[in-house]
Amino acid sequence: MPKVAVCLSGCGFLDGSEIHEAVFTLLALDQAGAQIVCCAPNKPQMHVVDHIKQKPAAGESRNVLTESARIARCEIQPLAAVEASDIDALILPGGFGAAKNLSTFAVDGANCAVDPGVERLVNDMLEMKKPVGAICIAPAVIARIVGKKGIRASLTIGTDRDTAAAIQTMGAKHSECAVTDMAVDQAHKIVSTPAYMLGQGPAEVHAGIKKLVDEVLRLIE
Amino acid sequence: MPKVAVCLSGCGFLDGSEIHEAVFTLLALDQAGAQIVCCAPNKPQMHVVDHIKQKPAAGESRNVLTESARIARCEIQPLAAVEASDIDALILPGGFGAAKNLSTFAVDGANCAVDPGVERLVNDMLEMKKPVGAICIAPAVIARIVGKKGIRASLTIGTDRDTAAAIQTMGAKHSECAVTDMAVDQAHKIVSTPAYMLGQGPAEVHAGIKKLVDEVLRLIE
Repeated sequence: MPKVAVCLSGCGFLDGSEIHEAVFTLLALDQAGAQIVCCAPNKPQMHVVDHIKQKPAAGESRNVLTESARIARCEIQPLAAVEASDIDALILPGGFGAAKNLSTFAVDGANCAVDPGVERLVNDMLEMKKPVGAICIAPAVIARIVGKKGIRASLTIGTDRDTAAAIQTMGAKHSECAVTDMAVDQAHKIVSTPAYMLGQGPAEVHAGIKKLVDEVLRLIE
Repeated sequence: MPKVAVCLSGCGFLDGSEIHEAVFTLLALDQAGAQIVCCAPNKPQMHVVDHIKQKPAAGESRNVLTESARIARCEIQPLAAVEASDIDALILPGGFGAAKNLSTFAVDGANCAVDPGVERLVNDMLEMKKPVGAICIAPAVIARIVGKKGIRASLTIGTDRDTAAAIQTMGAKHSECAVTDMAVDQAHKIVSTPAYMLGQGPAEVHAGIKKLVDEVLRLIE
């Protein structure tokens, strides 16, 4: 039974993990019989966004790990406790949390900083030739990490030109991809899918994530 | 295209909607081509539960509608704005939110009160012979509403004896059901599935909810 870590970034697409993407990742892993290890950084969110007003909520603060536990149904570990040697694959769902809490991409674009725990785990996975899946905007986080090492990874965030340009600036190659499909970098074992960067609803986002998860599992040696 | 309302109760199974159940409901509806109308009561949650410590968080308060919007990706209406005449079916996902925010079942058991907006909408649906789906613990809410009208509905919450007894006390008939299946009360057009009352993981919960959604859609006249 492969053991797969899912790195969450909160709970809600405007300030944390995109909930549908995270749940479809867990569903596909469970359907394939994988053991799931949810994890998230134990730190405050960049901010809290009111998902009706779609604006930051003044005076509120929430913890990334604590909010991620809502999606994980309490079964979650601090990211710092997860070692690449202990897992077979790693998947990062999207949502603004990937660009606000796992990195500063939402604020700093191609000059973003990546959470040190995320950077460590992704680097360790790639060095051990273990597959990494990245959904929606999360490929931007991967692009930044591998770009700093001079690795030219092939990734997709769908068709958004500005984000694709930022990914190329960070050193990755962007490949266009339909929401119901996924892109594979066989050499570096990185799989990505556009999800809600392109998706109009749960059904098509689910289709792409199902393909991504199955490909990540296939790449485990 | 049938129009189906999904009544949420927050975001996180210990104080709101069970996230997996809510997302699988949206997925199955979207896969079937239904138009989705998410809604939730616009009122404070009973309390906020820290999903790591699994205990109430002191001094925090959150709004049911605002938190539900995280699952609905901002596309949500106050429950008070939803009329039975405007929709073809209604589905209530589970989670403690159904027993804490949509009703007081978690505190008062068979003597619980139901949120007036939920009671109005469910009663209107049943009077118009439009189907209602209830997932996990949500059948307890339906049992209370229809029991007060002297209707003996047939429902499932899986196999939990205490909850089944409470449902019978409220006037409903409890039928045992596997997590991957659903129970149908053809006469009253009420469909229920145990989901996380029984489920051990996303795959089997998804299977039961997919069946429930397809049956609810089939019952639309």
